[in-house]
Amino acid sequence: MTNIQKGLAEFIGTFWLVFGGCGAAVLAAGFPDLGIGFLGVALAFGLTVVTMAYAIGHISGCHLNPAVTVGLWAGGRFAARDIPLYVVAQVLGAIVAAFLLYYVAQGSPTYDIAKGLAANGFGDGSPGHYDVWSALIIEMVLTAFFVWIIMGSTDGRAPAGFAPLAIGLALTLIHLIAIPVTNTSVNPARSTGPALVVGGLALQQLWLFWLAPLAGGLVGGWLYKTLGADSFPKPNIDGD
Amino acid sequence: MTNIQKGLAEFIGTFWLVFGGCGAAVLAAGFPDLGIGFLGVALAFGLTVVTMAYAIGHISGCHLNPAVTVGLWAGGRFAARDIPLYVVAQVLGAIVAAFLLYYVAQGSPTYDIAKGLAANGFGDGSPGHYDVWSALIIEMVLTAFFVWIIMGSTDGRAPAGFAPLAIGLALTLIHLIAIPVTNTSVNPARSTGPALVVGGLALQQLWLFWLAPLAGGLVGGWLYKTLGADSFPKPNIDGD
Amino acid sequence: MTNIQKGLAEFIGTFWLVFGGCGAAVLAAGFPDLGIGFLGVALAFGLTVVTMAYAIGHISGCHLNPAVTVGLWAGGRFAARDIPLYVVAQVLGAIVAAFLLYYVAQGSPTYDIAKGLAANGFGDGSPGHYDVWSALIIEMVLTAFFVWIIMGSTDGRAPAGFAPLAIGLALTLIHLIAIPVTNTSVNPARSTGPALVVGGLALQQLWLFWLAPLAGGLVGGWLYKTLGADSFPKPNIDGD
Amino acid sequence: MTNIQKGLAEFIGTFWLVFGGCGAAVLAAGFPDLGIGFLGVALAFGLTVVTMAYAIGHISGCHLNPAVTVGLWAGGRFAARDIPLYVVAQVLGAIVAAFLLYYVAQGSPTYDIAKGLAANGFGDGSPGHYDVWSALIIEMVLTAFFVWIIMGSTDGRAPAGFAPLAIGLALTLIHLIAIPVTNTSVNPARSTGPALVVGGLALQQLWLFWLAPLAGGLVGGWLYKTLGADSFPKPNIDGD
Repeated sequence: MTNIQKGLAEFIGTFWLVFGGCGAAVLAAGFPDLGIGFLGVALAFGLTVVTMAYAIGHISGCHLNPAVTVGLWAGGRFAARDIPLYVVAQVLGAIVAAFLLYYVAQGSPTYDIAKGLAANGFGDGSPGHYDVWSALIIEMVLTAFFVWIIMGSTDGRAPAGFAPLAIGLALTLIHLIAIPVTNTSVNPARSTGPALVVGGLALQQLWLFWLAPLAGGLVGGWLYKTLGADSFPKPNIDGD
Repeated sequence: MTNIQKGLAEFIGTFWLVFGGCGAAVLAAGFPDLGIGFLGVALAFGLTVVTMAYAIGHISGCHLNPAVTVGLWAGGRFAARDIPLYVVAQVLGAIVAAFLLYYVAQGSPTYDIAKGLAANGFGDGSPGHYDVWSALIIEMVLTAFFVWIIMGSTDGRAPAGFAPLAIGLALTLIHLIAIPVTNTSVNPARSTGPALVVGGLALQQLWLFWLAPLAGGLVGGWLYKTLGADSFPKPNIDGD
Repeated sequence: MTNIQKGLAEFIGTFWLVFGGCGAAVLAAGFPDLGIGFLGVALAFGLTVVTMAYAIGHISGCHLNPAVTVGLWAGGRFAARDIPLYVVAQVLGAIVAAFLLYYVAQGSPTYDIAKGLAANGFGDGSPGHYDVWSALIIEMVLTAFFVWIIMGSTDGRAPAGFAPLAIGLALTLIHLIAIPVTNTSVNPARSTGPALVVGGLALQQLWLFWLAPLAGGLVGGWLYKTLGADSFPKPNIDGD
Repeated sequence: MTNIQKGLAEFIGTFWLVFGGCGAAVLAAGFPDLGIGFLGVALAFGLTVVTMAYAIGHISGCHLNPAVTVGLWAGGRFAARDIPLYVVAQVLGAIVAAFLLYYVAQGSPTYDIAKGLAANGFGDGSPGHYDVWSALIIEMVLTAFFVWIIMGSTDGRAPAGFAPLAIGLALTLIHLIAIPVTNTSVNPARSTGPALVVGGLALQQLWLFWLAPLAGGLVGGWLYKTLGADSFPKPNIDGD
């Protein structure tokens, strides 16, 4: 795969994650009586990863998330020189998706930008008004486990082919836990897109959703490598 | 496989998609207190594809959707000469399913044709009254990603056997996003069945649910082929 | 495998289907505010089959359902001489499960046998009061598709190992469609257990839930065999 | 794998089970209007096992549960000398997770320890006020089936690679049935963590959630071994 192919795949995949996950949240979660709720949003975010990992895993490894890219580097699976390409493609995909989602949403007679665009936040920006410490801890812990699961399920000793399911369903699980706390990020790119569209509080709080996921991702990747390093047969560094 | 076998498989499979997906919407979504809501309908549509793809994927490729058939042709996976057979079988299956579903539904003392049959629409025909531009964009974008995921997950480089899961769950995800906007089509055959039964607005707006999914499918298939074309080892054109 | 092993596996598996599926319906579906609803019940029924098919598929084929056993015979996959053993084991497992579930349920201060035990029915016995024709048609059609999917996903040409997922998720889908109509049977054994415990209307209407699923199963098995007969490489008749 | 690696993997995995499963229950289940309910909690518990089994199954076998460890010993799959290491690591992981979850929860302005921490119970400690006999029976029966499914799906004759899905989804199913009865344990470690944090009734009733799951696990493991023992090709005792 060329760098152009990898970058385009990450752009398209992260677009899908934000358009699909935030789209389900903005368009369908709170629909009267029949809405999909946080459970449906959790499923949607996870399925963006399941579907895209089977579709482009063989092209770019399907990271779709700067914290995953950095975490896989810490885990010894990804080359440092490719980090900028991946992160830029991911952030651009997220931003384009957020703007297009905003356009679709305002085609409804009842949508208003004040309803937000599934941006992440803490305190007044948190769905359940959780404080900054709860937000920091949960984003760090969940991202660390997310990258741990990615490392483990793509390990050469794990059953082949199932990693996209394990990883996508991990993201569903993470959303089942944390939407009330921060609206769930574990992904700086996913946080950046909606924050740029809605501005205000979401933009002021964006630092936490870069800091905590990146720190968590580094811990998760490093911890898995350290624990299991003695028998690592994975033949290439592109992930799966 | 003979053409008769393929055509019958597409007829049966598309019957299942419409009877199962629209059936869940009409019979079970709004049941008082215990109804399955949009989340259950999204799951139902996706599972029609998961189940049928494992059951008939080896017979016809299990398209069940003219936009998929045309998109796979644009992606270089399907022969142009077989398009009419597939599309006719799909539309017929959808129509028969819609009429049988209507018969079952009216066995309830509270059902009334004015409640609809899960037809697709925009404006007054949209569950959330989204305008025509939102409908056009979301149907095009989601169908493009749907065909992209079909192309990618059946690529010879993707893990074998998982494509039916990835593709069916993609349809679930697509419904989690877009039911409030258009009731979600991404499939002209699925739109045609209920529109013929209920008539009126659904029939007048049917053009959009042929135009947007077909255009999206063409883009998705062409884009995947173009991006990944340099190493395409899939040995046959029947898809998986 | 001996006949004793197969019979015990079918007994245990059908116990699980009824205890799990009807248990979710009776204990958890209508819990105030947090109840799992029809969607949770649909998931529960399907997961009884997913889990048991991976656990005992290699012992008995994991039918858990007289309509499946008879349908697989019509499809040329199962020997006629083994039908009585399987059906008796299935019905006994269902009956024991229903009585144990009743014992657990009445440990709640608010349970009353008048609330039922997830028995199947039509007319006054139908959750949505659907008439007998709707019930007959939907049970026949859904069972036919259920057996069709079982035949297809265990066909030697389908991806190996995925059949339990396809079959279990088919049962989830079937429940997403039909709980409001008949409480969903597609399985005479599953209907017999609760009917014997609650008696009355459920017992009077039990005939339909033997007639329609068995007829549908025969059609589904025969149809798949007829359509795909020319290249059937499955090496044994025990299913998967 | 060394004992240190196995113990750390069980610690981390059981942390994930409690933090994820109880976290979804405490933080997200009852969120106004959009909460995930018992269905979301059931999915969360199951997905902790699906994700972790793919991530660390090749390190420790991913038991995460003393009843599973003891059940696999009864089934002839696990060495008695390793039981203490596994059980201690599991209980410690559960305790640390419960305390961290409590810290995160109290970052919400509306959380109060009186709301509990998803502890298990019967009678006044049961969500539906089920009595002690219902609790004993359902915990024993469900744990027996859980270990039966683990034994069967990791049997050498079952399809390779699917066991984590079957086992995790079994835990989801078990929660779909039993949350109203006991809040669902089937896992003494999972019960111990929250009970130590909240104390009181949860601690007084903790004996049942050691007794019933351990007894059930022993029965499930022994029964599977006895039924299927004559052709057991699994090459090692570490499970999968």
